Amino acid sequence: LCYNSDFPELKGWRIVMPWKSVAIVGVGLIGGSIGLALRKRGLADEVVGIGHRASSLRKAKSLGIVTRTTTNLKRGVAESELVVICTPVEMISGLAVEIAQQATFPTLITDVGSTKSRHPLAGSEKTGPESARADLFEDRVTVVTPGAGTDPARVERVESFWAALGSHVLRMTPRAHDQAVAMASHVPHMIAAALAAATSSDELPLVAGGWRDTTRVAAGDPQLWLPIFRTNRDQVLKALDKFEKVLATFRAALEREDDTRLTQLLQVGKRTRDSVAS
Amino acid sequence: LCYNSDFPELKGWRIVMPWKSVAIVGVGLIGGSIGLALRKRGLADEVVGIGHRASSLRKAKSLGIVTRTTTNLKRGVAESELVVICTPVEMISGLAVEIAQQATFPTLITDVGSTKSRHPLAGSEKTGPESARADLFEDRVTVVTPGAGTDPARVERVESFWAALGSHVLRMTPRAHDQAVAMASHVPHMIAAALAAATSSDELPLVAGGWRDTTRVAAGDPQLWLPIFRTNRDQVLKALDKFEKVLATFRAALEREDDTRLTQLLQVGKRTRDSVAS
Repeated sequence: LCYNSDFPELKGWRIVMPWKSVAIVGVGLIGGSIGLALRKRGLADEVVGIGHRASSLRKAKSLGIVTRTTTNLKRGVAESELVVICTPVEMISGLAVEIAQQATFPTLITDVGSTKSRHPLAGSEKTGPESARADLFEDRVTVVTPGAGTDPARVERVESFWAALGSHVLRMTPRAHDQAVAMASHVPHMIAAALAAATSSDELPLVAGGWRDTTRVAAGDPQLWLPIFRTNRDQVLKALDKFEKVLATFRAALEREDDTRLTQLLQVGKRTRDSVAS
Repeated sequence: LCYNSDFPELKGWRIVMPWKSVAIVGVGLIGGSIGLALRKRGLADEVVGIGHRASSLRKAKSLGIVTRTTTNLKRGVAESELVVICTPVEMISGLAVEIAQQATFPTLITDVGSTKSRHPLAGSEKTGPESARADLFEDRVTVVTPGAGTDPARVERVESFWAALGSHVLRMTPRAHDQAVAMASHVPHMIAAALAAATSSDELPLVAGGWRDTTRVAAGDPQLWLPIFRTNRDQVLKALDKFEKVLATFRAALEREDDTRLTQLLQVGKRTRDSVAS
């Protein structure tokens, strides 16, 4: 039980299991938002920010994201009960192994990678600790993906961590997660980029809201997306197959002027889209 | 020269060639917005609203969209210098023929169909005269698509009409227009619908901003889109070919783990998307 005396807007007693020390590796948008949320909600006595750029760490501390900072991974994680890895996806597995070797405590390690991992569906065009928001995880879906051998008690502890930050927590196998996220995020990105790339300069003056919406994510940073595609390659290719099969049925209906079928297909798309908030 | 005395916010003298009488067939979102813009800008002495539902016509008149209404096409167009057809696309060509036969005046006929026709790239989820806005065409692109035999003076008169409503006017052949709009609007709609339809219910909880943007237009009314696809079938199929070819290069780069090529493709998509306002 802890009382959020520092934050009068969070009135009353709330049942939480506070962490003594949480270490965050990488205090950008997501790591920073975790730190802010932990502190605002009074969920951790100490939040250690770990990174390789001293300037980012200083900024994170001055923004109240962390209580202590270090560029030394071993020292940072030594006495933490929980380490949350918030680095770009390609660094996660190496760091996880290193942390497991260096932690002296029975440390719980989790991460926020968007493939093969626990995955809070948060993110934005903005980056860096200055973009962090304590409410980034509120009412968002966070997927926890334990391996077959993961201790159930530890899985529950990680789930309660995300729930305490305000997330709706889903548990999935890593494979089911990667399959879902390929269709829900990675293939839409590839489609958006392909549509933008297929549009020639004489067609561009005619683009309206539909094209703009459909291609919006193509403005994302290729350097950020490349490792996402690379690490989820098999599932992206499978989801792409699925998309292409459906698109082929649209094409076939149009080719043979089958209005009934085309209407049906448009209706299926509409029904699915309508089932999701705008 | 006309002075917008009714609308003090439009100060001063503006050089315009006012129309004595403009008839609008179909006073929904687009027809209604034309009427409002004509009246607000003092561009027409009389605006006749023509439709088959008396209730819509009454609403249009009470909203100040038109000065006179009728459900009788012949009577409505008889003394109009300009008739703008703003009905669903599949009714346009039949109406144009009928109007040409019935007009007693040397009437200029134009339309707002999104295929094979002059095409203001306006529109929204909202419909009906109550959604009409006088500024719907301001700073939007309107394409005027004269046939090979159209009198140049009449083309210019139609172009000046759209320019007077605040549009940026482009002149294209009907074919070039339909090709551009297939890629800029129709194929994005089909892709959005196909992506939504390809997403299964267990993947939906994981959709985030990217999927939402990419599929947004799939919420559009299938009954509205079917005739658009039907009337622009050949160009939609060609644009779909182009999109599928580009998507195939993305797939091939991912399949053979060609990071350089994949980055290049993402960059082309980003560059094109960045060249257009958000």
